[in-house]
Amino acid sequence: MKIVHLLSGGLDSGVALAHWLSLSHEVRILSINYGQRHFRELESARALCEHFHLDFVEVNLEALKTLMRQNSQTGSFDVPEGHYTEDSMKMTVVPNRNMMMLSVAMSHAIDLKYDAVSFAAHGGDHTIYPDCRPEFIQAMNQVAKVCDWHPLEILAPFQDFTKSQIVKRGAELDFPFHLTWSCYKGLEKHCGKCGTCVERKEAFELSKLTDPTEYL
Amino acid sequence: MKIVHLLSGGLDSGVALAHWLSLSHEVRILSINYGQRHFRELESARALCEHFHLDFVEVNLEALKTLMRQNSQTGSFDVPEGHYTEDSMKMTVVPNRNMMMLSVAMSHAIDLKYDAVSFAAHGGDHTIYPDCRPEFIQAMNQVAKVCDWHPLEILAPFQDFTKSQIVKRGAELDFPFHLTWSCYKGLEKHCGKCGTCVERKEAFELSKLTDPTEYL
Repeated sequence: MKIVHLLSGGLDSGVALAHWLSLSHEVRILSINYGQRHFRELESARALCEHFHLDFVEVNLEALKTLMRQNSQTGSFDVPEGHYTEDSMKMTVVPNRNMMMLSVAMSHAIDLKYDAVSFAAHGGDHTIYPDCRPEFIQAMNQVAKVCDWHPLEILAPFQDFTKSQIVKRGAELDFPFHLTWSCYKGLEKHCGKCGTCVERKEAFELSKLTDPTEYL
Repeated sequence: MKIVHLLSGGLDSGVALAHWLSLSHEVRILSINYGQRHFRELESARALCEHFHLDFVEVNLEALKTLMRQNSQTGSFDVPEGHYTEDSMKMTVVPNRNMMMLSVAMSHAIDLKYDAVSFAAHGGDHTIYPDCRPEFIQAMNQVAKVCDWHPLEILAPFQDFTKSQIVKRGAELDFPFHLTWSCYKGLEKHCGKCGTCVERKEAFELSKLTDPTEYL
């Protein structure tokens, strides 16, 4: 299968990439700069592409942030600390982010006559990010069949995985976890306190694997 | 109703704007620069906003064109001349264009807590643009219900209209047709020969209204 895969530079989409490659699919990477504060993750996306000998394709859609005034990822608010599933984390939701990124990846996939677009939504995201839920993925799959004469499939290989199951899958594949970036704060090292850092730490603990991440 | 309306600067989305305003809806305009050759249409969008005393909001997503290599709207190919429904017009299809624009408008609508997003797909587009078909609009409506905790509706008020019916609707509303731009070539005046020019001329002829457009 020929797959355009959305690679953020984070752990989930990185392991998903390794997963597709292990199954011998042809993968084209797409990374999107949507004005995220933690654009540091895009350097990780580039490093992962180098590791796997793939072209790094980044699209700069930074102008999108002019439309999003009310969240901590693109705006000037502080990134909340604490657990990922807490209510305070709702301010880290960039409205309709996944659909914007998927629609761009779909355009690219249609242009290349590829078969599918993939992103790494996972089970643990459902409570906080509406556009990681199975019903969203299903609805996107319907759109993908009719948005062009060339039909596409939307793949979310980890939609039923917990984060620690993703870490386990990565370990099976000898995945270079140290190249990935999760922290929403985008400092020099992972802060260890924001929602994604807490979730990342926890995933390694639960899967009983050594966490190679350097936290501040 | 509070509606984010995608205004290209063309005739269809212009009349749709007048249509919503005539029904006393609150309308927020969004215009998207996706690297189209005929960015001249964005000046028309601005002029329409001035006419209707609305804010003109443009998002520059020009970087998208780096992903679209194979069509005449964003690439270096010649714009084909002739009738809109001919096979040669297929090269004017920007892959997944409507979904990319709708997804950005949806993000904006969620951020503003608006009720709906509107675009001006019309009946005549169906044969050539897959993302103007009723099945696409329906599928997008499903996504719009689940892509965020705040559900949205997708409106396409002209999906069953022919272009000449849109012109008639515009005439009823005293719509300033002369402010709009259709031509794909993006020269100083409408070329009168490309698919959209031919369609525009024909729509005025069929509706027995005077065409105020200056053609080369």
